[in-house]
Amino acid sequence: MSSTEYRVDRRELQFVVNETLAAGKLCELPDFSEFDEEMFTMIINEASTFSEQVLAPLNENGDRQGCRIENGSVVTPDGFANAWKQLGEGGWLSMNLPPEYGGQGLPEVISIIGKETQMAANQGFTIGASLTSGAANLIYTFGSAEQKTNYCEKMFSGTWSGSMCLTEPQAGTAVGDAATTATKEDAGHYLIKGTKQFITNGDHDMADNIIHLLLARTPAAPEGTKGISLFIVPKIRLDGTPNDVKVVSIEHKMGINGSPTCLLSFGDNNDCQGYLLKAENIGMAQMFQLMNEARLLVGLQGLAGAGAAVQNAWAYAKERTQGPSAVHPGEKAVIIEFPDVRRMLMQMKAVTEGLRALMYTTAWYIDMANHGPEESREKYQDLLDLHIPVCKSCGTDQGFEVARIGIQVLGGVGFTQDFPLEQNARDQKIASIYEGTNGIQALDLVGRKFNTKKGQLLDVLVAELSWFDHNSAEGELAGWVAEWETYRTLMLESIACLKKTGEAEGKDGYVLYAVNMLDLMGDVLCCFYLLKQAETAQKKWKSMLDGAASQAELLAENEEAQFYWNKLRTTEFYVWSVLPRALSNAKTIKNANLAPLSACL
Amino acid sequence: MSSTEYRVDRRELQFVVNETLAAGKLCELPDFSEFDEEMFTMIINEASTFSEQVLAPLNENGDRQGCRIENGSVVTPDGFANAWKQLGEGGWLSMNLPPEYGGQGLPEVISIIGKETQMAANQGFTIGASLTSGAANLIYTFGSAEQKTNYCEKMFSGTWSGSMCLTEPQAGTAVGDAATTATKEDAGHYLIKGTKQFITNGDHDMADNIIHLLLARTPAAPEGTKGISLFIVPKIRLDGTPNDVKVVSIEHKMGINGSPTCLLSFGDNNDCQGYLLKAENIGMAQMFQLMNEARLLVGLQGLAGAGAAVQNAWAYAKERTQGPSAVHPGEKAVIIEFPDVRRMLMQMKAVTEGLRALMYTTAWYIDMANHGPEESREKYQDLLDLHIPVCKSCGTDQGFEVARIGIQVLGGVGFTQDFPLEQNARDQKIASIYEGTNGIQALDLVGRKFNTKKGQLLDVLVAELSWFDHNSAEGELAGWVAEWETYRTLMLESIACLKKTGEAEGKDGYVLYAVNMLDLMGDVLCCFYLLKQAETAQKKWKSMLDGAASQAELLAENEEAQFYWNKLRTTEFYVWSVLPRALSNAKTIKNANLAPLSACL
Repeated sequence: MSSTEYRVDRRELQFVVNETLAAGKLCELPDFSEFDEEMFTMIINEASTFSEQVLAPLNENGDRQGCRIENGSVVTPDGFANAWKQLGEGGWLSMNLPPEYGGQGLPEVISIIGKETQMAANQGFTIGASLTSGAANLIYTFGSAEQKTNYCEKMFSGTWSGSMCLTEPQAGTAVGDAATTATKEDAGHYLIKGTKQFITNGDHDMADNIIHLLLARTPAAPEGTKGISLFIVPKIRLDGTPNDVKVVSIEHKMGINGSPTCLLSFGDNNDCQGYLLKAENIGMAQMFQLMNEARLLVGLQGLAGAGAAVQNAWAYAKERTQGPSAVHPGEKAVIIEFPDVRRMLMQMKAVTEGLRALMYTTAWYIDMANHGPEESREKYQDLLDLHIPVCKSCGTDQGFEVARIGIQVLGGVGFTQDFPLEQNARDQKIASIYEGTNGIQALDLVGRKFNTKKGQLLDVLVAELSWFDHNSAEGELAGWVAEWETYRTLMLESIACLKKTGEAEGKDGYVLYAVNMLDLMGDVLCCFYLLKQAETAQKKWKSMLDGAASQAELLAENEEAQFYWNKLRTTEFYVWSVLPRALSNAKTIKNANLAPLSACL
Repeated sequence: MSSTEYRVDRRELQFVVNETLAAGKLCELPDFSEFDEEMFTMIINEASTFSEQVLAPLNENGDRQGCRIENGSVVTPDGFANAWKQLGEGGWLSMNLPPEYGGQGLPEVISIIGKETQMAANQGFTIGASLTSGAANLIYTFGSAEQKTNYCEKMFSGTWSGSMCLTEPQAGTAVGDAATTATKEDAGHYLIKGTKQFITNGDHDMADNIIHLLLARTPAAPEGTKGISLFIVPKIRLDGTPNDVKVVSIEHKMGINGSPTCLLSFGDNNDCQGYLLKAENIGMAQMFQLMNEARLLVGLQGLAGAGAAVQNAWAYAKERTQGPSAVHPGEKAVIIEFPDVRRMLMQMKAVTEGLRALMYTTAWYIDMANHGPEESREKYQDLLDLHIPVCKSCGTDQGFEVARIGIQVLGGVGFTQDFPLEQNARDQKIASIYEGTNGIQALDLVGRKFNTKKGQLLDVLVAELSWFDHNSAEGELAGWVAEWETYRTLMLESIACLKKTGEAEGKDGYVLYAVNMLDLMGDVLCCFYLLKQAETAQKKWKSMLDGAASQAELLAENEEAQFYWNKLRTTEFYVWSVLPRALSNAKTIKNANLAPLSACL
């Protein structure tokens, strides 16, 4: 570990993926039969090394140097183009994409390791990579055979990159207000005209071509989201001629400065060709089909930032001396000796590991929903749909909060650019906003997900959360599970409260505290998955303790024992010191105060 | 109001200072007999105009241009030197300082208006101004007649500026570890030798001279804090010759880039003269004597940032359109129509006004403790001592949180430098760290303040918090007060819990959740002072309503009525939707989980 560099916690990833989620068992499924657990372990190591050695060293300069426009094109920070090449060649862009066009075809729960470590090492660089994977996946899912042949392999390998062109200056959250037009030409293609804003990697110098996936309206399209179509708009056409796409400017931002955020103008000279993806007016549905993966990735940005922050703060707390030591009289104290510092580190660690448990399980749900036994696919899809807004919103809000605490652990130097914490916080801040603001996630949860299929998603969740009813917890774990169960009840009571408020006060009353509902559910879910991890850790810890002379000796000598011990302590801390914040959300939901609606704002 | 500029909420300041704290009554005290309420109102207006017109326009460039070293001296951003001149000439540096040397001699509760508005307009600029006032006040309080004559007037007027030189690279929180030496010379002065870090305005080009107040150790001094002495160390000596003080470097920071944070080297050529303030080895006590004012000012940095954030976010939410309006069919919605946006704005507004109620009351306690009737001075000093760590810590943590929510209200543009919110958040982040980290504030509260004078401070607080027992609340206010009283009880129970944990688990157990205790107390106090404001607002609102045709008509037409109505709504929201977070802190304190102490960190 280092207080200034990024080091992956390989042991934790190994534990989460192989020991608790039993990713190896996925290999019994036909789609993953070519893999085995040993390969997953190898991937953890290789992904970690790539992120640490190739991406992390470029992170600080990426922020300081940033991007600029030169002669009408975006120039990215030194080293980014070379790293992009390695990213593509190493297969890191296509871990979860189909082998048919050169993808690795790995389960999401393994692919996510690459994404987390890359994001943790260098958020500004990695965000564009995620969008390339997403855009390529859209073409793979909805493209014609010819479109797939033309674009997929080149994008899977990073030879070409991708961008998602949704937002316009007047159409942010309200994507349906997009005014960019697409007019069909006799030749079969469409002429695109319009302006797109906040386009990540909308232009850059890292790949040979940029394939924009763009939302636009055809002339006769219905109003709103029902009249949106999705187009492939390459920067350079397949015949090698430049398309009529211009980068107008790039944003000056709080963070992710290594990532160019572009204002793009399409069709200034009436010569921007776009190629329809599948059919007109289904653009929103197409976007939604890959929304789960996209939103999980943004949630992961928060988790990744949190993970890096924990590593840096922990390392710093072990090296920084200050004042006299109470533990070693006569010596200087290392600040990790101080209770308040330890509390902050535990808070960071518990929240981060809770988020990781949540998100890796959600990735596993994606695998089970898409590749698992047919009869259980709907169940996992339901769980997935319910978990996604929680992953996105809790991941990004709590990830930022963890970085904030990390700055606090470092003290004065945390506020300086000599340590990576302040950049970490700045880079993360966008994630609560894009890919649907966290407010939108909460509306999605309580508005759509709670009510779809007559509430079936919640029923499936309740069944899933009864796991400890059938797998009895032992020893100290029993007390933690019992305590958690009171919060599970509170969550269900809060859902009922919310519905009651909705009945009495209408839609505005129902959604007013949707964010509190989401946060409450997030804490209950994170704690549940941590408890399941603790169940595994407890067994391993017990068997090690049985063979040891004493607990103290075991902990002093054995890093494996320390890992399991700490997993138990982290879970315990989550139950007794993190979970109580659910009380605050539950009470607020119950109080259902309507002042925000009646104030003269 | 503007979403990109700072506009003072003059009406709120007028309400807080004159209508609820009845600052005019302070003029009945001999020390303030030359003032009256009308003058206070005038000061509110003048302070607001100065901050808006002189400081705010320099804020953005102060951040972007930042400070640099040229030829061994710090160059500040364009316009800062001129603004400093106006600050001094306008008397804004010396509002609360004694008239004897050119100060205004105003009550703290009035002086704080200047500080809040200046800080809100331009944090980078104003921080150094606060330190000049503080350093000047130290000289005024402890200096010899000659020292006062030599320095006070020049510093009060800003002709010379001040700095506080406490921190050294190895001595941050542990100030007592300071290694800078001071050796007495036959001529009477001391030779200073050492390095000081993180010195705000340690060097700059805004004033003719810089007067450093520096902590150092004399050769025979006892170890630790008992051997620290305080020295005046001018950059240029009174005879006009340069002193041996060198600026080594300036920090590259997350924010407050308009403020040079210097590494200073004293006595590289063994010729740095320092002049003892009063006596050797009492430096820490001297610092502590002015600590309350200093910590209130840092808390104010958070309040100021929060206040500016509320103004900007509110204005933006009223101008930004997005999607179709449910209120005005056929039109675009202004985003302030959306419940989630309204909830965020109310959260920002309630927390900000709660903090302002807390801090302005605390400033009033300073006035009463120093200038009030002799028989009540101890009571107000006790309240003050108990309130200060809460003001510092809650002000800075919650101020940052308000800025974070403000970014969220703005959405994507909130993350760009086109709007002031992201700089606001960056500028504020340091405030939870300096002048004693917030962890240290919590230790001060539960360790020192709870236990000093056999717990007398808490007894005085309990008496103060019984205000509504003697002033019965009417109408809707009665229900809010009753609800708040359950939290008051919870606060006292939590204090008892903490003590019980301390008895069972020792000191580390006692302080482990000190931060939760402070946060809980902060919410209970902020809500109490808001309820007192609401009591005033309710009377005014009722009398306006009595003369109106209907509530709807009154609110539609009358800005005064809107103000009082909103104050009631804000208070109501605080009680039912903010205060519940105290439940989380109380439960965590009660659970008293010791995992942070037993984990292998």
